[in-house]
Formats: sequence, C-alpha cells, structure tokens
Amino acid sequence: MHAAARPEFAIRDLLHGRRDAAVGTRAHDLIRELYPICRSLTGEGVRESLKLVQKVIPLDIHEVASGTRAFDWVVPKEWNIRDAYIKNARGERVVDFRHSNLHVTGYSVPVRARMSLGELRPRLYSLPAKPDVVPLRTSYFREDWGFSIAHRDLEKLPEGEYEVCIDSTLTEGSLTYGECFLPGETTDEVLVSTHICHPSLCNDNLSGVALATELARALGDCRRRYSYRFLFIPAQIGSIVWLSRNERNVGRIKHGLVLVAVGDSGDPSYKRSRRGNAEIDRAAVHVLRQQGFEGRVREFFPHGNDERQFCSPGFNLPVGSFMRTPCGTFPEYHTSADNLDFVRPAALADSFDQCIGIFEILEHNRRYLNLNPKCEPQLGKRGLYRLTGDVHGGGKVKEMPMLWVLNLSDGDHSLLDIAERSELAFGDVLAAAHALEQCGLLKEIE
Amino acid sequence: MHAAARPEFAIRDLLHGRRDAAVGTRAHDLIRELYPICRSLTGEGVRESLKLVQKVIPLDIHEVASGTRAFDWVVPKEWNIRDAYIKNARGERVVDFRHSNLHVTGYSVPVRARMSLGELRPRLYSLPAKPDVVPLRTSYFREDWGFSIAHRDLEKLPEGEYEVCIDSTLTEGSLTYGECFLPGETTDEVLVSTHICHPSLCNDNLSGVALATELARALGDCRRRYSYRFLFIPAQIGSIVWLSRNERNVGRIKHGLVLVAVGDSGDPSYKRSRRGNAEIDRAAVHVLRQQGFEGRVREFFPHGNDERQFCSPGFNLPVGSFMRTPCGTFPEYHTSADNLDFVRPAALADSFDQCIGIFEILEHNRRYLNLNPKCEPQLGKRGLYRLTGDVHGGGKVKEMPMLWVLNLSDGDHSLLDIAERSELAFGDVLAAAHALEQCGLLKEIE
Amino acid sequence: MHAAARPEFAIRDLLHGRRDAAVGTRAHDLIRELYPICRSLTGEGVRESLKLVQKVIPLDIHEVASGTRAFDWVVPKEWNIRDAYIKNARGERVVDFRHSNLHVTGYSVPVRARMSLGELRPRLYSLPAKPDVVPLRTSYFREDWGFSIAHRDLEKLPEGEYEVCIDSTLTEGSLTYGECFLPGETTDEVLVSTHICHPSLCNDNLSGVALATELARALGDCRRRYSYRFLFIPAQIGSIVWLSRNERNVGRIKHGLVLVAVGDSGDPSYKRSRRGNAEIDRAAVHVLRQQGFEGRVREFFPHGNDERQFCSPGFNLPVGSFMRTPCGTFPEYHTSADNLDFVRPAALADSFDQCIGIFEILEHNRRYLNLNPKCEPQLGKRGLYRLTGDVHGGGKVKEMPMLWVLNLSDGDHSLLDIAERSELAFGDVLAAAHALEQCGLLKEIE
Repeated sequence: MHAAARPEFAIRDLLHGRRDAAVGTRAHDLIRELYPICRSLTGEGVRESLKLVQKVIPLDIHEVASGTRAFDWVVPKEWNIRDAYIKNARGERVVDFRHSNLHVTGYSVPVRARMSLGELRPRLYSLPAKPDVVPLRTSYFREDWGFSIAHRDLEKLPEGEYEVCIDSTLTEGSLTYGECFLPGETTDEVLVSTHICHPSLCNDNLSGVALATELARALGDCRRRYSYRFLFIPAQIGSIVWLSRNERNVGRIKHGLVLVAVGDSGDPSYKRSRRGNAEIDRAAVHVLRQQGFEGRVREFFPHGNDERQFCSPGFNLPVGSFMRTPCGTFPEYHTSADNLDFVRPAALADSFDQCIGIFEILEHNRRYLNLNPKCEPQLGKRGLYRLTGDVHGGGKVKEMPMLWVLNLSDGDHSLLDIAERSELAFGDVLAAAHALEQCGLLKEIE
Repeated sequence: MHAAARPEFAIRDLLHGRRDAAVGTRAHDLIRELYPICRSLTGEGVRESLKLVQKVIPLDIHEVASGTRAFDWVVPKEWNIRDAYIKNARGERVVDFRHSNLHVTGYSVPVRARMSLGELRPRLYSLPAKPDVVPLRTSYFREDWGFSIAHRDLEKLPEGEYEVCIDSTLTEGSLTYGECFLPGETTDEVLVSTHICHPSLCNDNLSGVALATELARALGDCRRRYSYRFLFIPAQIGSIVWLSRNERNVGRIKHGLVLVAVGDSGDPSYKRSRRGNAEIDRAAVHVLRQQGFEGRVREFFPHGNDERQFCSPGFNLPVGSFMRTPCGTFPEYHTSADNLDFVRPAALADSFDQCIGIFEILEHNRRYLNLNPKCEPQLGKRGLYRLTGDVHGGGKVKEMPMLWVLNLSDGDHSLLDIAERSELAFGDVLAAAHALEQCGLLKEIE
Repeated sequence: MHAAARPEFAIRDLLHGRRDAAVGTRAHDLIRELYPICRSLTGEGVRESLKLVQKVIPLDIHEVASGTRAFDWVVPKEWNIRDAYIKNARGERVVDFRHSNLHVTGYSVPVRARMSLGELRPRLYSLPAKPDVVPLRTSYFREDWGFSIAHRDLEKLPEGEYEVCIDSTLTEGSLTYGECFLPGETTDEVLVSTHICHPSLCNDNLSGVALATELARALGDCRRRYSYRFLFIPAQIGSIVWLSRNERNVGRIKHGLVLVAVGDSGDPSYKRSRRGNAEIDRAAVHVLRQQGFEGRVREFFPHGNDERQFCSPGFNLPVGSFMRTPCGTFPEYHTSADNLDFVRPAALADSFDQCIGIFEILEHNRRYLNLNPKCEPQLGKRGLYRLTGDVHGGGKVKEMPMLWVLNLSDGDHSLLDIAERSELAFGDVLAAAHALEQCGLLKEIE
C-alpha cells in the first residue's frame, strides 16, 4: 500500500519532529506494551510481539520449522513457558516467573522437583557485584534449566526443602521472524535489522524493535530511491536463518544498519561495518561528526549483534550498527535494571533523527557535473550571490556550500565526498546542489 | 633583456639579503607610492599603478574592452572618479574622497543631489563594531552608489540637508592588467598572480603587488630552469579574463602562487592548491615546516582570492596561495586601518625569502641515481667524510644529507622526497646531491 | 648437527625462560670472557673472540685477504698489537694498553719515540665533558696513531719528556668473520647480524655477540620453517665484504635483524628497515606494541650500524635493527663506562625474548581460509565456545581471537594482519587458528 500511495514527503521532512512530534512517545508506548511478554529465540512470545508490531506497519511473519538447516546451524526446538517458581517449605513462591520472566533461564527444560537448598544452589544464578538485579541467562544450545535471582534475595534463602517448577515445553515447532519490505524506485535495498528475542529488557532490545517500527512507518510515507527491508529476528540464529533463506538476493543490499540499545540517555554511537569505510559507514560517521560525536564511532569487531553474521566473510555486507550506549558498557545491560525507566522518549526520538539523517545521505548521495567548470560561474546574475563586496554583511554562509559543490563536481566527487572534504553538513551541500541544478549550472550524472 | 643577460646568480643566492639587503624597504617604498592612487576593477588608477610597476620590471600592459565575454562573465564598464563628497548645510565637506578613496563605494554611479540625512542614511555604510575605521565597499555588478564612513563620524552627523556629489564615470572602456614574463631554460612556467584592484589598502594588496615586483626584479637576474609569469590583475574578473584569453597555454603552468597580504607582521602561511599535494604545495609546506610553521598550512577551500579561478575544476591548476595573516582574519582587513603602518619592510623581506625558498625547491627538485647503489661508497677517500671514528667530534652534520641522498637516490625519489622523508632542509639535501654528483657518485636522471 | 636432530620444540617454547632459565646469565658470562680481548676490524682479537663463540654454536670462520675488492671498498691491512704505553721521565707507564685496550687508537701504526708533552699532546684524545672515562677512537682508513686517556688524567700529566710505544703491526693479512647457518624447512632465510669489531665495550657490542650466540644455540634445537643465518662481522666493512661475496644469494633473505646494544637496562627498541613496513618491521612493531613500547619504534635513517649496508638501495633488504637504548643516546656509548656493569643478565634475557617473539611471528605468519565463511560456524557444538548466554561469566577472552580469525580468514589476511587489526597478541591469534584448523573450520593456504 505504501508504494502505491505516491508519497509526497522527502525523507528530510521527517527530521526534528517536523512531520510527527510524537515519534519518541509512541516508540516508548510500544516498548511498554511489549515489555511484559516473555520472548525467547522461538515461541509464542515472539509471535505475540510481532503481532503488536504488525498493527503499526505491514509485516510478513515467517515460520521456519525446527530442524531446518541454516549453514552450520539447525533451527532449534520451539520453547514455550506458562509458569515457573521456587516455593519454600511454607508453599510461598520465593522466586516467581509471574513477577519477571528474567527469573527463568531461557530455554529451560521442564522440571518439577523437591530439593534441598544445597541441591538447588547450583541452579540459582545471581550477580554478587550487582546484588539488587535479576540477571538474564539463557541456555539455547544445551538442554539445561535454572533460575536467576537477585543476589540479595539469594542470600536470604533459608536452608530447607524447596519445590521447584518450570512449566515449559521444548518441542518441535518453528522459529518466527518478521519482515517489512518497502519497495522504492530501485531494487537496491537498505537493510534494517533488530533482534526481538530478549524477554523483559527495554534498551536491549525493545528499543530497537520500537525504533525500527517507527522508521518503517515513517519511511512508508516518503519518496524512496532505495527499497527498505526491516527484519525483526531472534539474535544470531535469526540472521543466520534469514541469510540462508535469502542468500541469492543479498546482492541487493547496498547498505544496512543493525539497531540495538537505541533508547538510553547516552550519546548516539556507531560501529563500522567490516568493510570499515562503506558508504553506510561514511554516512553514519558524517552524521555523528556534524554533532561533535566523532569519538562515538567504533571500529568493527566480530562480536556483538547480528552484524557478526551480515559481516561474516562469506557475505561481507556493508552493515554497521547504530546504538546509543553500546551493549555491555552500561551497568543495566542484561539485567532487570534495563527496564521502562532506563529508556526515554527523547532518546528514542533522537535515535530516529540520527537514522533518518543517515538515510537522507544514502538517498541523495549522487554525483553531479559542473556544467561551467572553467572559472566560477557568475552566481550573482542568477540571484545566488550577494551583489556587493560587503564581506562584513551576512548571507555568506550559504555561499560556501555552492562554491564547494561547483568546485568539486568534476565527476569524481559525490555529495558525501564534498561534505566530507568541506566539513559542511550534508544537508547544506544537498541544498546547494539542488539550487545549482535548478539554474542549470549542475547536472546529475551516473 | 633579462633572459639575454646570461645571469650569473643561482636562485638561492637571493636568500637572506645576500645579494640585496634593500628588498624590504624598496617594497615598502613602492607601497607608499601606490597607496594614494584610487584603484578599482578598471580605470585610470589601475593604469597609473601598473606604470609605476613598469618602472621596475618589464611589464606588458593589456587592455580588454568592456563587453568582452570571458566564460560566464562579461568585462564590465570602466569606472573612473575625479572627486566625491558630502557637504553639510554650511557647505563643509563632512565626507571627502580627497581624504580617502575608501569613502566612496567602488563603482558608484555619478550622483549630484541634495537630500535630508534620513534620505542619505541608507547610502552611508559604517562598521558599528569598529567605529574608527572607514570600511571598503564595492558594487561591481549592480549599479549603485554609496559612501563609507567611520561609525563615530556617522553618529556625529546632525539632521539637516546635505549636498551629495560623486563625480564618476561608468562607461564603455577597458579592463587593464599587467603581465611580466621571464623566459627560462624550459617553457614550463611558474605563475605568480597578485591582485591590483584594491584602493588605499596596504596589506590587501599593495603588499602583494610590491612583493611580486621585487620577485620579478630579482628572478630576472638569475639562472632560471622555469619561465616565470607574473600577473598583476583585478581580483576574480582579472584571472577569469586572463584564463579565457590564455586557455590554450595553461598546460605550461606547472606551479603557481597567488600573493596576498604578505606585508603584515604575522607569521607566514600557505593555503594548499585544490590538488592538495601538488609539488608547489609540498615545496611550500617544506619551507614552512623547516621553520616550525607547519601549523600555518591550510587546506584548500574554494573561497578567497584568484586561486578560486585557477583551481576551478575545469582548470585545476597547481596554484596555492602565500600569505602572512590570511585575509579576513586580521581586524584591519578591508578597512582604512590596513594602512602604511600595518605593513613592514621586515615582513616584506621575509615574504620575499619564503617565496625564493619555494622557488629554489621547484628549480632544483630533480631525481638522481646513485651510481654505486650496492653498499655505501667510501666517502672518506673522496674527501667527503671524516676519516677517524670519532663520533664525539664535529663535521658529522653534513654527512647525513649525503647518506640520505645516496640511500634514496634509486630513481623513485626526488630531492624533495628525500628532504621530506629525512626532515632535512632542502638546501642541505641539494648541496649533498651536488657534492656527490661532482665526484661521480650520482647522476641526474629524467 | 642441529638440522639432523629432528628438533621437538616449537619456537614459542623458548619464551619466558620456559626451556632455559639461564639465557641471561650465560650471555653475561660470555660477555665477561670476551671483554678483555682487544678486537678491531681485523686481527687476532677477532679470531680469538670467534673461537669462543664457536665453542657454543657451529660457526664457520672466514678469512678474506687484505686488498680484496668489495664494491667501492678494499679489505684493509690486518692490524695486531702486543703492547702500548706512554712512560714518564721516571719510566712509569702513565698510559698503559694492558689496563685498557681503549687507550690506543684502533689501527695505530707502530711508533717508538721520545717527545715532550707539547709534541705528544695532539696525539692524546680525551673528553673534557666526561673527564673520568677513556673514549674509543679508531683510524681505520688513514694511517695514524694516538692514545685515548681520561681527561682528568690528561690534566695531571706534568711537562717533561715521555717515552711513547705502540708495538703494533699493520700488514697484509686478512679480515675475519664468523657465520652460523641453521637450515630450516625452506631455503628462505632470516638474517641476524652483529658486529664484533669493538674492543672492550660491553653493550656496543659484546651484548649483540652474546645474544646472537644464545639465539643461534636455542634455534638450533627448534623446528624451523626458515633457515637462519647469523653473521659475526666487523662493522660496515664486514657487511660490505659479506654482501660482495654473497650477492647472488641475498634474494633468500626474507627478513633480517641487526643486533646492537641489547644488554643495557633501557626498554627495548626497534629501528625500521628502509622499506618501512616490511614483515620484519610489522612483526617487531607488533611485539613492542603489545608491551606498550610503541613509542620505542624509530623510522629508518641511513646511519647507524650494518643496516646501512643491508638497506643500501642496491640491496634494500628487509633488515631492521633491534636495540635497547639506541647507540649514541646513552652517555656510556663508546667509552670505558660501557663496561661489565652496564650490561645486565635480565636485560639480555629480555632481549632474547623480544627476538624470539619476533621470530615466532615470522615462523607462523600464514594465511588461512575460513571453510565456513557464511555466518559464523557453531563453535559451541565443537567445544570451542561457552554454551550458556552468560556474558558475565569468564572464558570469553579466548573467544575473541577465534571470532577474529574466522572473520578475517578470507584469503586476504595473514595472522599478523589479523593481530594488527584486532590489536590482539599474535600468540592468541595463532592459538585460535590452530584450534580452528584442528576442528576443520580453517585451512592453511599458500
């Protein structure tokens, strides 16, 4: 439907809440809805979450059967859970899945048993250095069970017998992921990927899910040179499965972003793709540099999120990662403290702007040819230049982008090349190019 | 005449006042002579100025008729002015062209009128932030008239009627520029360009005119590998006109320098050509770096002086710009404070040395081949090396340039390459090359 | 013998005294033995020294006759000395060769004379700024004689007549050097060169001689991909002579190190080869950088030790120089203060480790191909990865080298490339590659 609507808006109209001031609060509302759901690599929690996203954007939901091969991997069994607890001798729940799904090790096999604290102890996982939080724990690829618990609560458990229950199933089923495709003027694609497998953790990564949703909604209404493909997938196995099913078409992916941890109050950051200086890298670095955030750019390393798979040597896709505070470097990471208070509407709105700023560059980064390359053209007679030699006066600022565009539009330089060399904002360079094109001084080339 | 004289001097003999200690004072004297003349893009003031230069160096003076096309531009009408003033009700001149030609907006159309201060006010141009100076103002490409005035004087003007007179003409005529060509051993050229269109402003750019004159005088007496072409032109339109008339021969220009603001007391500085690392750029950077002025090197930007035209993409000539304090960054810029006191003989003499230092590199930057490339040659038996292993003694300094020249003269490295890698002064590297060539260890190659 | 023994040890087993804790003390013992011998460019002292080395490692001792041409040079006469002194009027030795061979200018012609202090004075060489030490002085290429003396002693000499004796011979003979060749799996060679011509000076360069001896001893017991060639030569003329006699085979030299001043207590340092970024340079820089000694890396310059000849443009061999405190920058340099106390067993042992660390990289720096390049392989099922998603736990460190090796083993990157980009230690990268190779995920390629 989006493509058919002949959208009127240019992508830069989406910036700074000009068209929609509610992006941040709406993203936070979606996080709030998704927060209580128990998600994992597979299972009903993922399906339920994707259906909430589907209310906002057109989303194809795919199911891939357990046991399906994907390169070196196999789609695991589907895991579902209804309840889990540890009861003390008086029958009181001292650890309760209903309070937080973080209490159960992800992919725990079903268990029903009575045991002493001594027997139970090796199954209880806590963080002595962060005694108040419940840590995330998973065991996807080895059948196991366990509970996470705040260390302070663990220390309070008296000796005695406990009743342990994990009412889960681990059975043949399927892995579920969502895909939203927005066709553009060309079949060249921008890939946006975000993981949807974590349970009640907000920054990692309901923030990514909510931001991707808002970006897809907004881009649906815009003119698009590129097609955009949004993936809502379980981490690692999801990108591996998606790549194995779409191997023939990955050549269409010209640029990509993995979105993770985009809702905290830290400054925006960017991790380069394996290529290091791909156009997506240069666009993201330009956007951050223009705001003084050059120090927030990190080199690629083969750890982290799904960029590990997109950037594996057999694919080497130009996929970077946009974050605010990088995963693993904020103390709330993978604990119950990564909650609804930790992510903020203003941060989500800013992340939206950063991504739109990057997409704007990708959409408009073309090469132009100066049609009057010998000496400067007379801008004044075309109304593009102050007419008096009054350098103490105003109006000069916008001349510089025009002079740069004219000087470097020799066929070798794209607008991003020009923005980089001149250290001017891409938007100013783009506006200059459009003004010069309109008066016939510049022509777009292949 | 200069070429025929079989000059005896090498270019480096011109350094440090060795042949002529009076360069700085003579340049300042020429500035003093030129200072009162009212110059503009065109007109008698330019002709009169060029004739003063012609007394010192061989100068061809060219006239290009108004209306002549030059790329996207047209040669403007010729402007001349005899007198201009604003008289108060008592008939006293409160603004007087005879005191300073800066008082009249350049290219003002003739006017004779009586008007109230209220009507006159929009025609009076001052700088409230610099209340004591008269600012430069021009209106070359839109017919207009006006006066510049010190803000403090403007504020003192009482209400009442004023008599306004600009006794100017703006008619078909011509644009005038001067050209001094010094043929060398080859037809490859070094271009030196300086603008001559500013009225009573000393650093911008009578300093450039005087320095170019002294350089041309001195080079006329030297052996020259390159031919040197000095242009004395009105800014921008002058270089545009010159390029349009000499388009076929610009391929001869191997290196170029625009000279502006070369007489103030600031440290020397250099703005790179559009190419960024052309030989002229490397030569100038080497000269500045050897004096610790590496921080005074600026990247190219497509604004400034005539390098804008020489470095337009259709020409992309290797033309940089030598200055002391860059235009626009000293408070006196384009005001009456850029006067005879603001430029100093010592600064002009130092600018002369900087340029000669650059030219020396261009003249002598050749490639040599080490004829004994396997192990070091025995310098001692040729009298080029200390004979005792006495490292605590003297004489060692000059061995290093020889060892560097021998080590890098493999056909891939020019003397400037060697000076850059070794961080030695080009002059020392050159002296080493000459010593080694004389004893048959080195041979110049193409 | 070494090659036939089918050695069992890998080169890295030599690190950190694992196989042999006595390297440093043994090297210091050898220095102590060599210290009293009077060495020079040629003569019995060199032969005697080489025979001591020959007790430890297999060493071919070569003699090259005086007068033999070597490129631009000629092998000098052989110099030998039995005794030398200056006696005062009472027949007491006030300068005595038997106390220190530094007292005699190297290559002094024989002399027997009586002369006044005034006549003798120009032949007495001292360092007023370092009044307590006897400076080294040589006159290899001009026939001369003289004495070195502590400045404090020089000032004490009373007027009067002195008896001067230098009981030396300077005759047709030969230049002597030693060569130890350890064949490896390939004929590609690593060259290690050290100069043996200095008399009683410990850091420059008995330390180099002792370290080269210990390296050759240890490498003799190791598996070796490369052949290793150790040269014990007189400085400059020795490398010139060796190169002239081995010109046809220098193509086998893939990497090389000159060892000088490797026994003082300063931090290790490295001077790059002329090539600047040869594999030997990258290996040495990696080893130093991993220890925080990146600031101890120096660019090539064509002065110093035998790297001057190996890196002359006609050879341009990839030969760098390993030192601790560079020659010429420690106050003891070329004086009697460079004695047995100035070099330390611990420093010699550390220099041994630095060199072995460099050789380890050269031996193992190969390219591998990731056989599962599309997405990551499932390391967990191969026992190479933690199985629970427990990032707060341990064991993570060693995963990073595996992920890096997998990510960059695309055929374009060697293990050193990977170590450089990841900033991981080469040893960790190598261990990861071996682990991955063993489980069939990686294959070595050409």
